[in-house]
Amino acid sequence: MVLLEDETLRDGLQVESRIFSLDEKLEIFRQLAGAGISRIQIGSFVNPKRVPQMTGTEELIHAIRAQKANGPLLTALILNDKGLERALLCGIEHVSMSVSMSNTHSLKNAGKPAAEALLDMAALISQARGSGLAVRAGLQCSFGCVYEGAIAEEAVLTATEKLAEAGALEVNLSDTTGMANPLAVESLVRQVQREQSGLEISLHLHDTRGLGLANMFAGYQAGVRTFDVCTGGLGGCPFVRGAAGNVPTEDALQMFSSMGVETGIDLKKICATVGTLENILGRKLPGHMKTVLDAER
Amino acid sequence: MVLLEDETLRDGLQVESRIFSLDEKLEIFRQLAGAGISRIQIGSFVNPKRVPQMTGTEELIHAIRAQKANGPLLTALILNDKGLERALLCGIEHVSMSVSMSNTHSLKNAGKPAAEALLDMAALISQARGSGLAVRAGLQCSFGCVYEGAIAEEAVLTATEKLAEAGALEVNLSDTTGMANPLAVESLVRQVQREQSGLEISLHLHDTRGLGLANMFAGYQAGVRTFDVCTGGLGGCPFVRGAAGNVPTEDALQMFSSMGVETGIDLKKICATVGTLENILGRKLPGHMKTVLDAER
Repeated sequence: MVLLEDETLRDGLQVESRIFSLDEKLEIFRQLAGAGISRIQIGSFVNPKRVPQMTGTEELIHAIRAQKANGPLLTALILNDKGLERALLCGIEHVSMSVSMSNTHSLKNAGKPAAEALLDMAALISQARGSGLAVRAGLQCSFGCVYEGAIAEEAVLTATEKLAEAGALEVNLSDTTGMANPLAVESLVRQVQREQSGLEISLHLHDTRGLGLANMFAGYQAGVRTFDVCTGGLGGCPFVRGAAGNVPTEDALQMFSSMGVETGIDLKKICATVGTLENILGRKLPGHMKTVLDAER
Repeated sequence: MVLLEDETLRDGLQVESRIFSLDEKLEIFRQLAGAGISRIQIGSFVNPKRVPQMTGTEELIHAIRAQKANGPLLTALILNDKGLERALLCGIEHVSMSVSMSNTHSLKNAGKPAAEALLDMAALISQARGSGLAVRAGLQCSFGCVYEGAIAEEAVLTATEKLAEAGALEVNLSDTTGMANPLAVESLVRQVQREQSGLEISLHLHDTRGLGLANMFAGYQAGVRTFDVCTGGLGGCPFVRGAAGNVPTEDALQMFSSMGVETGIDLKKICATVGTLENILGRKLPGHMKTVLDAER
């Protein structure tokens, strides 16, 4: 069994120039939940002036709650105290946080040096845990950075230790720029496991160089059981040149189910959601499995 | 070190409706050779009425020979006595042959039952070896068939034994329909290694479900060091619904070089060839690395 956290509504939509309405987001959520996704990153509590795509995360959560359906675990991205406050007001139980391992990327993306961002995140983790929230903490560019090149494994291990000490339950090793390779994924995962045996590890992989699924397989072989995905392969990073989307939910679940590993997600239903997204966005998305199912009709 | 056999001029072009001229093929060959490809499947000796894209394989080989350049090993696909005769007349030193593990696919693609096709190929291997040619023999649909579903590992092992007995130097396990998964690749490769320790194993992988590179990585981990690729990710199979291209040469070499494994191929040069192919065909090809290099400019 693996857990695929769908991030379509956050990482997927945040780089689209077309801004989704509350009703559209709610419809995508309904479809993802109906397909069997068990953890959904619903949005982020960030400055709506800076990321207008993420406006209305509160309203979306309230609308989902109003349906009173037993559903997936909701999680949202927060980056600071203000975000934590909004998350707590919404009554959400799980939050994600994230900083970059690359100083250049951190300055561009978060406006502060990586070391400072890490310290700030450790404080935010403690605060969120003290408020009763489950927390996962992400390390962007864990496998390299287009600006800085290789990122030392040792630096990632040191950062991971700080996150664990601060109370994070899960570290999200993120290949923001798609520069990871399967051997690097295996190596870093095994080292984090060795040094932080109590910490859950998840992987956030981008398909920039076509290695998303190969890296996911390598992570699975090393023991990772939680992976981030975006339906259709949406996603990217506005501050990274040439960054491509996340691993498509439908392709990831097909890989696992072909290996006999359960995801709890229905392939046909998730491909129907790819169709909904393609209709709204007016373009074909990069995932493969919708094309395969369409050809089989 | 891994050997990437580029099949752009054969598997790549044979499913394109646009038929490449001799000059265009020669130019693609020059570029592939110049990029450092060390084995090129140059075409096939088949019926030009049935596969017009493969007309003129003799002329192409003569034109390459006329340049008297030290270059890549040339190989070509043959399917019968007539093909072997043409290959011998050309003075080519290496041939590929191929049959399907799926009876339904064999009937559609080769017009005869799989068992009969295998016997015929064994005879052709002996004949070619007797004539001094190096031979690799392929087993299509080794990992499953869209018509018949799963293909038993045991059947592939039995077929492989026959190929080895007939004198094949290399067995090409082919995932014609893109139905392989990384664990299946690993399992089959290890079994063939165990039973046929003297036989070289190569993998021919299609990216239909996005698993081309993941399967290639799994094969590499199991010990395979020869892989088929097509520049840009061209290729397919006219007799398989929804089949997609081969693993792109440029993405495969990027995966290996990011893992510190040499291929001898120049990424920039091979991406320039992707550009040449895209210009001729008038569409974007599925490989990732040209897009990455273009974004880095």
